[in-house]
Amino acid sequence: MIITMKKTANHAEIDKIMTTFKNQGLQVHESIGENYRIFGLVGDTSKVDPKRLEANPLVEDVVRVSSPYKKVSRMFHPEDTIVEVNGIKIGGKEKIVVIGGPCSVEGEDMVVNIAKEVKDAGACMLRGGAYKPRTSPYAFQGMGTDGILALAEARKQTGLPIVTELMSADKLDEFIEHVDIIQIGARNMQNFELLKAVGRTKKPILLKRGLANTIEEWLMSAEYILAEGNPNVILCERGIRTFEKYTRNTLDLSVVPIIKKKTHLPIIIDPSHATGDWELVEPASLAAIAAGADGLIIEVHDQPECAWSDGAQSLKPKHFKELIKKCSKIANVIGRDM
Amino acid sequence: MIITMKKTANHAEIDKIMTTFKNQGLQVHESIGENYRIFGLVGDTSKVDPKRLEANPLVEDVVRVSSPYKKVSRMFHPEDTIVEVNGIKIGGKEKIVVIGGPCSVEGEDMVVNIAKEVKDAGACMLRGGAYKPRTSPYAFQGMGTDGILALAEARKQTGLPIVTELMSADKLDEFIEHVDIIQIGARNMQNFELLKAVGRTKKPILLKRGLANTIEEWLMSAEYILAEGNPNVILCERGIRTFEKYTRNTLDLSVVPIIKKKTHLPIIIDPSHATGDWELVEPASLAAIAAGADGLIIEVHDQPECAWSDGAQSLKPKHFKELIKKCSKIANVIGRDM
Amino acid sequence: MIITMKKTANHAEIDKIMTTFKNQGLQVHESIGENYRIFGLVGDTSKVDPKRLEANPLVEDVVRVSSPYKKVSRMFHPEDTIVEVNGIKIGGKEKIVVIGGPCSVEGEDMVVNIAKEVKDAGACMLRGGAYKPRTSPYAFQGMGTDGILALAEARKQTGLPIVTELMSADKLDEFIEHVDIIQIGARNMQNFELLKAVGRTKKPILLKRGLANTIEEWLMSAEYILAEGNPNVILCERGIRTFEKYTRNTLDLSVVPIIKKKTHLPIIIDPSHATGDWELVEPASLAAIAAGADGLIIEVHDQPECAWSDGAQSLKPKHFKELIKKCSKIANVIGRDM
Amino acid sequence: MIITMKKTANHAEIDKIMTTFKNQGLQVHESIGENYRIFGLVGDTSKVDPKRLEANPLVEDVVRVSSPYKKVSRMFHPEDTIVEVNGIKIGGKEKIVVIGGPCSVEGEDMVVNIAKEVKDAGACMLRGGAYKPRTSPYAFQGMGTDGILALAEARKQTGLPIVTELMSADKLDEFIEHVDIIQIGARNMQNFELLKAVGRTKKPILLKRGLANTIEEWLMSAEYILAEGNPNVILCERGIRTFEKYTRNTLDLSVVPIIKKKTHLPIIIDPSHATGDWELVEPASLAAIAAGADGLIIEVHDQPECAWSDGAQSLKPKHFKELIKKCSKIANVIGRDM
Repeated sequence: MIITMKKTANHAEIDKIMTTFKNQGLQVHESIGENYRIFGLVGDTSKVDPKRLEANPLVEDVVRVSSPYKKVSRMFHPEDTIVEVNGIKIGGKEKIVVIGGPCSVEGEDMVVNIAKEVKDAGACMLRGGAYKPRTSPYAFQGMGTDGILALAEARKQTGLPIVTELMSADKLDEFIEHVDIIQIGARNMQNFELLKAVGRTKKPILLKRGLANTIEEWLMSAEYILAEGNPNVILCERGIRTFEKYTRNTLDLSVVPIIKKKTHLPIIIDPSHATGDWELVEPASLAAIAAGADGLIIEVHDQPECAWSDGAQSLKPKHFKELIKKCSKIANVIGRDM
Repeated sequence: MIITMKKTANHAEIDKIMTTFKNQGLQVHESIGENYRIFGLVGDTSKVDPKRLEANPLVEDVVRVSSPYKKVSRMFHPEDTIVEVNGIKIGGKEKIVVIGGPCSVEGEDMVVNIAKEVKDAGACMLRGGAYKPRTSPYAFQGMGTDGILALAEARKQTGLPIVTELMSADKLDEFIEHVDIIQIGARNMQNFELLKAVGRTKKPILLKRGLANTIEEWLMSAEYILAEGNPNVILCERGIRTFEKYTRNTLDLSVVPIIKKKTHLPIIIDPSHATGDWELVEPASLAAIAAGADGLIIEVHDQPECAWSDGAQSLKPKHFKELIKKCSKIANVIGRDM
Repeated sequence: MIITMKKTANHAEIDKIMTTFKNQGLQVHESIGENYRIFGLVGDTSKVDPKRLEANPLVEDVVRVSSPYKKVSRMFHPEDTIVEVNGIKIGGKEKIVVIGGPCSVEGEDMVVNIAKEVKDAGACMLRGGAYKPRTSPYAFQGMGTDGILALAEARKQTGLPIVTELMSADKLDEFIEHVDIIQIGARNMQNFELLKAVGRTKKPILLKRGLANTIEEWLMSAEYILAEGNPNVILCERGIRTFEKYTRNTLDLSVVPIIKKKTHLPIIIDPSHATGDWELVEPASLAAIAAGADGLIIEVHDQPECAWSDGAQSLKPKHFKELIKKCSKIANVIGRDM
Repeated sequence: MIITMKKTANHAEIDKIMTTFKNQGLQVHESIGENYRIFGLVGDTSKVDPKRLEANPLVEDVVRVSSPYKKVSRMFHPEDTIVEVNGIKIGGKEKIVVIGGPCSVEGEDMVVNIAKEVKDAGACMLRGGAYKPRTSPYAFQGMGTDGILALAEARKQTGLPIVTELMSADKLDEFIEHVDIIQIGARNMQNFELLKAVGRTKKPILLKRGLANTIEEWLMSAEYILAEGNPNVILCERGIRTFEKYTRNTLDLSVVPIIKKKTHLPIIIDPSHATGDWELVEPASLAAIAAGADGLIIEVHDQPECAWSDGAQSLKPKHFKELIKKCSKIANVIGRDM
């Protein structure tokens, strides 16, 4: 950590501050510039709060050199984390996974049927929302427990593990019992109480990036989960909010190589929410695999025009099957299986 | 609602869709363009989901004419909502309120002392965080229940109502018992389960705008609270996320007249989080009052350089007192008291 | 175009407005809603200015149904535009093109050497900046005419057509004489005088997307060039400005299928500027090809650490050659040659 | 400037780099961390290009301590710059200026009439566009030279100095002859050739902030003008591009105190373009003055609903007059005249 102090700061004041750091076991190195005095802190600075330092009127600027995350950092954990879900492995050099299914569970028959179709298309897991975060209180809010049980039935009939979103810690027991991967949605990425709650389980967690969160904040949210003892985190990019209006969000594929470099956690892509338009899902999926993603999570619906939510971004099963075939060829080019 | 359909759509298909609308009691008007057929739906379209319509490949575009919010809309509730907190009125033409206090409660003595100072400076309520949403799991997470009790003691000694953030519905009883205004923080603006929970109380709710949420989404979150039966919502702008790096966030003061026009709810401004820099708090506060805000919520700390969080944006009590004096003169110019 | 008027507007006023439209040869259709009166204009509305209509206090809202661009629109020109540069074809189903070279021309020997290396690597054109838009007036501003002549010499020795940026219309003659593709940089995307000037030539134009411009604005800038008579426009995405700090810009690959759908013009990707980091260039390039781009423009430098500008995002020739090989395999998967 | 190098970098390589800096007259201080070696460069580092250093694979990170601008920096020029225009002084503690007029000049009579009205309302300068940057090539592009001459006639009749936008350096002579303040529009903020051209004159320059430019980039563009020898720069904030859709742009008023702190140049606000809605212009203007702005530039039109451009954001003269009165009272509260 590097602290720049104003030249006008008097020596006694500066000494007092630097002594505090030395007492915390940190080494302090000084450089004197024309207009500033610059101090380098060496040692474990993860407990030093830059915001607190900046409150000091003598301090011009504080810069972290090390990243603020530890357990998710590849520096402290060089080997890839492989998350295992009912025998399916995600991350590292493992097979690329495809998760398919409807935005919302609309009934048991419906989700069982789609589960069979996505399995037939080549997907290895089933997605479907039972608790739905909706902008409007008047929009369909999901089937709740009945939706969870319908997903469980679909798993029973197809063998596909199920992924679904948890919106509130009071439903955690239900999810631990029935769900294979617990999704934390974009709007809850910084719902820290929820992160701590799922961190105390051993369930695989699919952590979506918030609509306007930096990669660093996203990794800090993953750090919350790991810090509580749960290492099974899968990151999921689903588009960020920008000024562009032709797409629902802007898919940020540069995150794939960045995540691979900064952390050991797997990263998958959600092209459906990122683009909001089924016609863009295939090119976005191909691009995601080419960029090195460990998986895809895609909305699939038999009759998108009748879907209770997000129909505009859902693929029909037939199109989904073709997409997987093409993605699989892209995967081979970059040395992965799918 | 206006639906644009492709010229190529056949008549039978279109008739089927329009019949559905007519069966819902809506009137349908048609215009035929060169390249499109355009349908206007007249009646209560709040239950029609534009996303679902857009899923239909025959549909080119769907545009809402009416706003998607109802209970918060000034169209359906023209008179100002005045939220009352222990006899203090917020909104309409009432006195402009100032809420002051530390970012985090750091102990009972500390918060009682600051409470006395903010009261002496002219503030009418006390803020202070007991449960703190922090980006890092290693940063101070707040004193929890002890913090709430310390705030209650400060209220007892000063008479100032207390405002503090609720992060999880399982603490709601504690807040109903001890807290005067329940704050929903920016990161939880779309934590819909939490919104529903506070909507089922009658407590005044301070609803902060999310870091990357549109005004429309913010009003939809307020609609969640009103839809559950709680009309006591105060909106709070605290800056939005942009590309600019010299400020922590970008304070969006245009929201003040927009909120006044679109809704009947009070709007207050948080210049401390919006700017992240104590030197900017005074000009931002003066501007907020000039723009017509119903109040300010400002971070105040005796020793900002020792604050456990957000010291960089905290004012000293003396500066806070001067700020209130200046704001009060601005208020007079625009015909308000403070 | 659909115009929503307030219910309170009186009939005489509305009739006056609608008569104006009818006199322009437009048909007017009306729907009456509960709170609004809605008018649909049918015919060629490209000359009707929505901003001007919105100035009328009786008007609530104006929505365009047709896109505001005409000549660049695929609706009015369904077949792909193929831009030809010294026998090389760009767009449609043609071979994917790769343009390589240094950020800045640093001397004749330097650029001739790099030209040979990028040709050997498989690139079919040479890029290099002679006039450089730099944020700082103290940064290297480019070699100017000497740089253009050095590029011309490199073309002479390698046969590679040259692409370089024009910053000011007064250098246009020099560019017409020596340059094969004239680049309009991101910062000049809405320098309308420059767009008109290059529109009056027949030279192929590489039009980069502005840092904060929507796809619609980008297409309107292309429309400026076509409207002046030059149909040879190649669009180039180079990343947009967002809140994310780990990358220089956010590469928006969804533009590829959108551009293909909305227009007939070719689209290429600049992964070097989009990411600002050479380690991200390869995954971004593979993703771009998978998404369907018609080409890549990539910064290549022998000694990136000594480059006079943008070294951090430059690839070494050896790495560039490998990248082209991999991209070529991705191209084959999606049915293109490279 | 602080350079963080990887621990793995060998000594010979690092020595080579540091010797380069020492040869440039810089002092080099070293701190050794656990994972990094950190170097502080002391002296005039304005010529050291951080991007170039970051290209070196041994370099982890480069941080500037001093700002990259010099001539515009308050550190090197502590006293306020006062720009004088025909006897009117702008900046420092001088009277706050108000500039009013139509978006576009639509004829001589029209602009003369509005000039009289804005003068009567209390404005001290006249604005009006003769060359108009329009997104669409089919929109009205301005009256050109005739518009400039009409403005000059309005000045003759009212004595108001005139402000108008220059879009291309080839019209500079015309502007030097007829115009009092040359405006560089938002879309040309990084048109560096144009900045250099106006930097070679002594005319006052109104430099608008780009739609997606940081304050630092804006100051660097001002630096371009000062570096060429023209110290008469007035900065103008006109809103930035964000995700919000209810306003045309997001007015960023925090720039006012930041600009006052970082530079000695005057800053004025354009609430018309920032909000895009005449109903928001008054609250935004009051807020701007409260925040400490040195002036306002506001669109005024007799018949906004008939304006040839931007009618939706234009005030009528009567409303403009009331606005100036209110602003004037706000100015008094903060110790300024208007």
